[in-house]
Amino acid sequence: MAPLADRKRTKSAVPKKKPKAVKPRRSGSARKPKAPVSPLAPKSFPELPAIAGVSLATAQSGTRYKGRHDLMLAVMETGTSAAGVFTTSKVPSAAVEWCQSRLQEGRGNARALLVNAGNANAFTGKAGFEAATAIASAVASAVSCRRGDVFVGSTGVIGEALETEKIVGKFTVLAGSLAPDGWIQAASAICTTDTFPKLATATAEIDGVQVTINGIAKGSGMIAPDMATMLAYIFTDAAIPAEVLQTLLMLTVHDSFNMITVDGDTSTSDTVMLFATGKCAEHRPVNRPGDPRLRDFREKLAEVATELAQQIVRDGEGATKFVTVTVSGAANARAARKIANSIANSPLVKTAIAGEDPNWGRIVMAVGKAGEAADRDAMRIDIGGVTVARDGMVDPDYKEATVGKYMKNKEIDITVDVGVGRGEATVWTCDLTHRYIEINADYRS
Amino acid sequence: MAPLADRKRTKSAVPKKKPKAVKPRRSGSARKPKAPVSPLAPKSFPELPAIAGVSLATAQSGTRYKGRHDLMLAVMETGTSAAGVFTTSKVPSAAVEWCQSRLQEGRGNARALLVNAGNANAFTGKAGFEAATAIASAVASAVSCRRGDVFVGSTGVIGEALETEKIVGKFTVLAGSLAPDGWIQAASAICTTDTFPKLATATAEIDGVQVTINGIAKGSGMIAPDMATMLAYIFTDAAIPAEVLQTLLMLTVHDSFNMITVDGDTSTSDTVMLFATGKCAEHRPVNRPGDPRLRDFREKLAEVATELAQQIVRDGEGATKFVTVTVSGAANARAARKIANSIANSPLVKTAIAGEDPNWGRIVMAVGKAGEAADRDAMRIDIGGVTVARDGMVDPDYKEATVGKYMKNKEIDITVDVGVGRGEATVWTCDLTHRYIEINADYRS
Repeated sequence: MAPLADRKRTKSAVPKKKPKAVKPRRSGSARKPKAPVSPLAPKSFPELPAIAGVSLATAQSGTRYKGRHDLMLAVMETGTSAAGVFTTSKVPSAAVEWCQSRLQEGRGNARALLVNAGNANAFTGKAGFEAATAIASAVASAVSCRRGDVFVGSTGVIGEALETEKIVGKFTVLAGSLAPDGWIQAASAICTTDTFPKLATATAEIDGVQVTINGIAKGSGMIAPDMATMLAYIFTDAAIPAEVLQTLLMLTVHDSFNMITVDGDTSTSDTVMLFATGKCAEHRPVNRPGDPRLRDFREKLAEVATELAQQIVRDGEGATKFVTVTVSGAANARAARKIANSIANSPLVKTAIAGEDPNWGRIVMAVGKAGEAADRDAMRIDIGGVTVARDGMVDPDYKEATVGKYMKNKEIDITVDVGVGRGEATVWTCDLTHRYIEINADYRS
Repeated sequence: MAPLADRKRTKSAVPKKKPKAVKPRRSGSARKPKAPVSPLAPKSFPELPAIAGVSLATAQSGTRYKGRHDLMLAVMETGTSAAGVFTTSKVPSAAVEWCQSRLQEGRGNARALLVNAGNANAFTGKAGFEAATAIASAVASAVSCRRGDVFVGSTGVIGEALETEKIVGKFTVLAGSLAPDGWIQAASAICTTDTFPKLATATAEIDGVQVTINGIAKGSGMIAPDMATMLAYIFTDAAIPAEVLQTLLMLTVHDSFNMITVDGDTSTSDTVMLFATGKCAEHRPVNRPGDPRLRDFREKLAEVATELAQQIVRDGEGATKFVTVTVSGAANARAARKIANSIANSPLVKTAIAGEDPNWGRIVMAVGKAGEAADRDAMRIDIGGVTVARDGMVDPDYKEATVGKYMKNKEIDITVDVGVGRGEATVWTCDLTHRYIEINADYRS
């Protein structure tokens, strides 16, 4: 594939702020055969506008990957607030620990974000945290800010020492090439086994002032082959204090990034961060997450987060189907989430979808194993809007041929009413195919 | 494959009570290409001795399968006590509901067990329970016992109505062909997608009296393609009251059948039952599970149950490796079980094993996602007895080539010490291969 430097030159010839059909290209590794772009990839990428107070740069570190950029630097102006949601793993990566300590001790101020792809700096002992600290120090020197205001992200191999010197050696170049555009390059630089970069944008109004929300993400499998992680970074020029931002982000993640699953595996490095520069046209201060003037912002933030989350599923390792699982009638929302995840994570449901088999018996099985209340004899299952089973048995009018034909689509909707209450939830997932096994078993890393 | 009738004739020519090298053959379905016998299958089957008070028969129902027996009848003499452990699924099959109600209302008396393969009679509404009741009634007539003392098992397709008449029509033939031998035929008749029948036997002493324990099981994938279920039936001629038997069985299942996983999916029909005829040479009554005279029986029962459980893993769909995951150093036994299951169920760990890749980073990930206490910086991982990681990072002496060579074995041992307590657990599983996807996605059922 073409190095990103070429892509950047091509891109600079086109006008800004308009959606543009950029053909998806994979972000490759020199160590594995080239993977084809996911059949579920978006047809084109959105063109992300500049965000006041944010500048970006990318570079090639010379560590794991050949012929592509694998470092991403974002610098934010003074006054930027930050929020973060991180992996629940009991063995988090050094970068996650660094970011969590910064948010706790730094009162949510942020000036820079540096992400490296190819090495997760996870399970690397004390040396790992020292490496994260050294990177933050070097970024602080290069962009003239406090070390405590620098956030870091690492994604890639677990258990290998980070080649810190090679990475740090690129910071002068990175600081010198900062520019307000280059979102697709930034999204590409943080990829590992992703077959396409992930971007989303929206505009919102706060108190009559227009603000922009841009997001980039990477992820392909909850943890990719020897690679780790879902990372997502969202930037806005809105002026929102860190405490409010943190609550907004947590609420948003709950219904977006926490509602996707590829293989049920959880990375040591999963990270979603939200930065608000406050450099939009001035709006009156917002001091609480429930402020009605934040309503449009909350909606648009949810849109950006959901779009990024769904793109990660669309790049799920080996995915050929994008599956929406909606559960209703559960005892409560938490129970609905658990049942929906049980269906979405079931290897037998996922392989049936891969085989285009409307095997609703496996959906019944997955509901049953979730451990949440379900009324077998009131249960109803619809696939693609067609009722397959109701009142605890196959629908008398069900014709397998109809649903069998529907299963050939790339987008599959499954809805299940478990008949006990009013809890609802929607989870997005993909199918489980030979390609998943190929990616994760056939190639030695 | 040869019909079981042929196999029976061949077998009757060989002497009893000695281990015999019977070549594994698959129990097939006419609706799918023939599956090869699992590479992890035992080299030969044990010859199971007769058990005083138990007689067996098998027949072909003419429902789903062609050219093989798919009905198994076991008749036990008066005085037999029964115990059962069943699926935790919230949508259990009709057979499971029938057996549970019999154990609750029938004070643990048992006279007969009828199992059909090919149709799980699950998610079949009220008609399903009526079918189970009709089968029990017909068995009771055929063998002259109370309906309430008849247990039933069903395994196969979910959601299709059982062809009760075809099954019931064979009961006269079944009752007429009851014999004290025929364990391999019984084990074969309950198979669905299994590639070999599963049998185990042991002798134990209770109060100086020798008793026999025979077990048969089926299962290949926690729930096989459109087929459901792990079923295991264990018989003994010991004299043990039902309440004691129930406790012994629950304790045994906890460390055997509950410690295996193929794909983490849970059937609607999982069943383990234990029948004790009391027809051994007389021993003094045992009235509590902790009776020291039951010590040897408990051990041998655990051996039989563990052997059957491991055989199910060895016949895991697509399995090429038998994997033992041992976790120590957890906060308590429950935490150790959860961490061991998290490792054993991780698609990324299982695909790495399939790829013969000593990808210990994925083991770290799976420990982290279990949600139980683990001290990252004290954690130790051994593969095949070689220390891979310790003190939270790769072992300085670790050579990937050594462990890479070990990964080519069919039996893989993974041990993880999470460094916080004294909780231990062992889980048995298999790898996740292309063949699993083939079995579950490529063939329409």
